[in-house]
Amino acid sequence: VEGNEVRAVLFDVFGTLVDWRGGVARELAAFGRERGVEADWNAFADAWRAAYVPSMERVRRGELPWMNLDELQTRSFIELAPRFGLPALDATEIRRCVDGWHRLDPWPGVRDGLELLRRDYVLATLSNGNLSLLIDLARRGDLRFDALLCSEVFRHYKPDPETYLGASAMLGLHPKNVVLVAAHAGDLRAAASQGLRTAFFARPNEFGSPEKADPAPRGEVDFVVANFGQLAKELATFPTGKRA
Amino acid sequence: VEGNEVRAVLFDVFGTLVDWRGGVARELAAFGRERGVEADWNAFADAWRAAYVPSMERVRRGELPWMNLDELQTRSFIELAPRFGLPALDATEIRRCVDGWHRLDPWPGVRDGLELLRRDYVLATLSNGNLSLLIDLARRGDLRFDALLCSEVFRHYKPDPETYLGASAMLGLHPKNVVLVAAHAGDLRAAASQGLRTAFFARPNEFGSPEKADPAPRGEVDFVVANFGQLAKELATFPTGKRA
Repeated sequence: VEGNEVRAVLFDVFGTLVDWRGGVARELAAFGRERGVEADWNAFADAWRAAYVPSMERVRRGELPWMNLDELQTRSFIELAPRFGLPALDATEIRRCVDGWHRLDPWPGVRDGLELLRRDYVLATLSNGNLSLLIDLARRGDLRFDALLCSEVFRHYKPDPETYLGASAMLGLHPKNVVLVAAHAGDLRAAASQGLRTAFFARPNEFGSPEKADPAPRGEVDFVVANFGQLAKELATFPTGKRA
Repeated sequence: VEGNEVRAVLFDVFGTLVDWRGGVARELAAFGRERGVEADWNAFADAWRAAYVPSMERVRRGELPWMNLDELQTRSFIELAPRFGLPALDATEIRRCVDGWHRLDPWPGVRDGLELLRRDYVLATLSNGNLSLLIDLARRGDLRFDALLCSEVFRHYKPDPETYLGASAMLGLHPKNVVLVAAHAGDLRAAASQGLRTAFFARPNEFGSPEKADPAPRGEVDFVVANFGQLAKELATFPTGKRA
């Protein structure tokens, strides 16, 4: 590929394309109802998500051997469950709860938005989720990607450079011909430092209310969008340098 | 996953799903016409394909460092081109010819056959091609897979066990819950030795005429099929042991 055009668009998944908080709380609530346990399931979802980054950090620093996200989520769940009235679960029950992350729904408009963009760009995920998790989410939401790229392929978690550079290389592209779309400033900063283009996709309700969402990193990303229509329009104007 | 049911179907790509011989010969012929060169382009395609396995063997034995299929095909092309009247090509011309492998068409019925099977099974490739090559073939043929798994992900070429076991693991499945579909007995034998189920998909014209095709390895695979309808029917009867 010559020139600066955008050829491929990578998407972060949790928070950017799917509503992990609503879905995890719903799955935990259903399990709690069956067991006759009441708890603040949104708070459980938040606590579980809060354990996500530190658990990956331990793998990134080499304190834990490589393990995929399902395995990390299992460890975090076992630690958290007793605090929410769920002690002494057996392996099948634990598995069922962790599998709740495989049953998350996309935000409205994601399916059709991807369909539209896929006419002009190669679309792939770039997620810290493992492959089987991404397959289940894509099948559930009827989300069509050209490829599912994830931490498990590179055996590195974002924001390790191996993920951004590995994804670009496997797409056969220079990083400048690839855009990462995410609702998280840190992910985008790391991608930009490796030469990728970046788009911040605002998801004000990812953490339940807008004041808890990641603020748009204006000036640090190529552009900021709030929906797929805006994303398509911005992508169509590339390359024009930093505009946000 | 408990039990013996089939959850995922892996497909070999070159020869099994796409017609490499017809496509490569067509692409080379177009290039030859522009350059005013006449040659037996089917013979060039056959010679290029004949170099494919030995070149991967050199990587498998460690005589060559890891390189993806596009890179191996480039090396083989540079060796073969002068024999077919194409000496002294520049990098852009070489790239264009090697990229011909990205413009192969599926055999008739593949698109709809995958569509049908994807209702009941997770579908993925398991190919020695690199990811960008598989993406281009899937886009061109409108072939929908749930994931593209390939040598580049595992940094091993089939028939290395890492490919069959790695694919099963990334799908979150035991090998016995995964079927490999291929037109090549050696690939299927290697998969079976790692515990996968196997289906031989006859492609009598892969090498131009039926007597050159790989004979059906009856008794060594779970079943032998000649089209997607038969494949769907056989998969639906699993598990019943070896039947071919």
